[in-house]
Amino acid sequence: MQQAEFITILWFIGIIAEAMTGALCAGRKQMDLFGVVIIGCATAIGGGTLRDMLLGNYPLIWVENVHYLVAIAFASLLTVIIAPVMRYLSKLFLTIDALGLAVFSIIGAQKTLMLGFSPVMAVVMGVVTGVFGSVIRDILCNQVPLVFQKELYALVALLTASLYIVLEHYAVASWLNLALSLTFGFGFRMLAIRYHWSMPKFNYQYHQDNEVG
Amino acid sequence: MQQAEFITILWFIGIIAEAMTGALCAGRKQMDLFGVVIIGCATAIGGGTLRDMLLGNYPLIWVENVHYLVAIAFASLLTVIIAPVMRYLSKLFLTIDALGLAVFSIIGAQKTLMLGFSPVMAVVMGVVTGVFGSVIRDILCNQVPLVFQKELYALVALLTASLYIVLEHYAVASWLNLALSLTFGFGFRMLAIRYHWSMPKFNYQYHQDNEVG
Amino acid sequence: MQQAEFITILWFIGIIAEAMTGALCAGRKQMDLFGVVIIGCATAIGGGTLRDMLLGNYPLIWVENVHYLVAIAFASLLTVIIAPVMRYLSKLFLTIDALGLAVFSIIGAQKTLMLGFSPVMAVVMGVVTGVFGSVIRDILCNQVPLVFQKELYALVALLTASLYIVLEHYAVASWLNLALSLTFGFGFRMLAIRYHWSMPKFNYQYHQDNEVG
Repeated sequence: MQQAEFITILWFIGIIAEAMTGALCAGRKQMDLFGVVIIGCATAIGGGTLRDMLLGNYPLIWVENVHYLVAIAFASLLTVIIAPVMRYLSKLFLTIDALGLAVFSIIGAQKTLMLGFSPVMAVVMGVVTGVFGSVIRDILCNQVPLVFQKELYALVALLTASLYIVLEHYAVASWLNLALSLTFGFGFRMLAIRYHWSMPKFNYQYHQDNEVG
Repeated sequence: MQQAEFITILWFIGIIAEAMTGALCAGRKQMDLFGVVIIGCATAIGGGTLRDMLLGNYPLIWVENVHYLVAIAFASLLTVIIAPVMRYLSKLFLTIDALGLAVFSIIGAQKTLMLGFSPVMAVVMGVVTGVFGSVIRDILCNQVPLVFQKELYALVALLTASLYIVLEHYAVASWLNLALSLTFGFGFRMLAIRYHWSMPKFNYQYHQDNEVG
Repeated sequence: MQQAEFITILWFIGIIAEAMTGALCAGRKQMDLFGVVIIGCATAIGGGTLRDMLLGNYPLIWVENVHYLVAIAFASLLTVIIAPVMRYLSKLFLTIDALGLAVFSIIGAQKTLMLGFSPVMAVVMGVVTGVFGSVIRDILCNQVPLVFQKELYALVALLTASLYIVLEHYAVASWLNLALSLTFGFGFRMLAIRYHWSMPKFNYQYHQDNEVG
């Protein structure tokens, strides 16, 4: 198996996991099956889509190749069927989601570099790719984005993309780079879940009369 | 009258109806007149704009031709004036909105096909065009998108766009195709409203400790 | 100092002020530091980014020049540190924000004109640039956009951009145009805050059985 294929497989696992978190979120808002599919799709492809739209990188991958969207729609509907057993699978699910986060961050950084943008922008776009699927999901479900409030999610994306870029800069063999970045991102996220690590919160409750618009 | 003109007239009626639903939604949130106009515009052109941005199809139609935006802004403000009698016009209003939904879905599918994308993508973009104006409206008004929860709205868009694509594939005369697709989409939506048809809902109320990000 | 430099400095002050309103909003929602930075960035560059994406004007300025994003992230984090004294600085803060609003509206209109679009579209994009940073902030923080409900914010953007376009049309010297438009926009906004000017509100509380989707 070639490296590109390996990444594609991981990416595919990642979007399926993301679609399932989207479908569950839609279920919490008691949406109908169409809402489930749309939220599932937006969650799975939202991060990469936003990245490519910000970079002006057309055509979008899922517009060119419609099979991804079909697979995501299918995964979203499947989630409805297996929802009753989801609670028993939650550890497996968190594991797959953590893998997806690491893969998305690496792919986002990689694509941005390949398009000729700066390493810092590659890290930024790694974060956008890894995190904004969830953000779009939460906006569509009318709730404050979870990734801005809980656990180390965005930080994992930032550090994973940064590690990938640094190793790339020092010309580490691409297989080794991928293995190290993936392991780091995945491991860090799993540890963050296990030990409830989180970032410091900013709590500002002062309201002034003239709210700044 | 030529077919292109006929479609443009229907499309125009559609965006006016959409602008009015946007204005009413802004009124429920007690927005000021500026908010009314912006929500009206976003509702009317949001679906087509998102479609064209996803397809990378520039310049956007309302950026090139500013008259549409002016008409939409006017319709939004008009809604404020006629709001007291809107409740007596609600049946007319729902009828126009149903017509708009069918037209938007067909136009979205048609444009996507003409840009050279696949039939399945044309259906997807028909749904995006028909539905996302309302979704953007609800996001700007900070409420869960109605079309994901109530009635057959997105499904009408999906089936209308699909019917259009299938008839197009079998080389049905374009006037006949338009007539059939419009009649189907409009009729289906009106029946769905009349008989309170809706999709099955997905209700998932289990929360776990470690929310997936 | 050249005019372009002068505008860049004002623009930079503006995005820093916007970043700080974003960070404070994140603090009200008790987000973590990463959420603070992301909301800060989205608030500061959201309006200009949306404008350029609607116009198809790539590459985006902050994608090409990553220093802006770094400065915004820094300003967002700084806000967390100086938050305890923010209430004593609120007048200074509102002043800077008003300056930013005027600058954003002018820059938005100016760029749109230079890209060859119509004067009316330039005004529309002036409003988008001035206002949508705040709108995106409020969407990410899950609240109804303030600028649609309170004070003269969007109207200031509209009139400032319009004044700039009109003076440009009558070939007023660009320095004079800038000075007049800036003074007008800044002054109007400060007066609106001081005297609690606001637009008429649209209050529509009638709900029908068949909500229009």
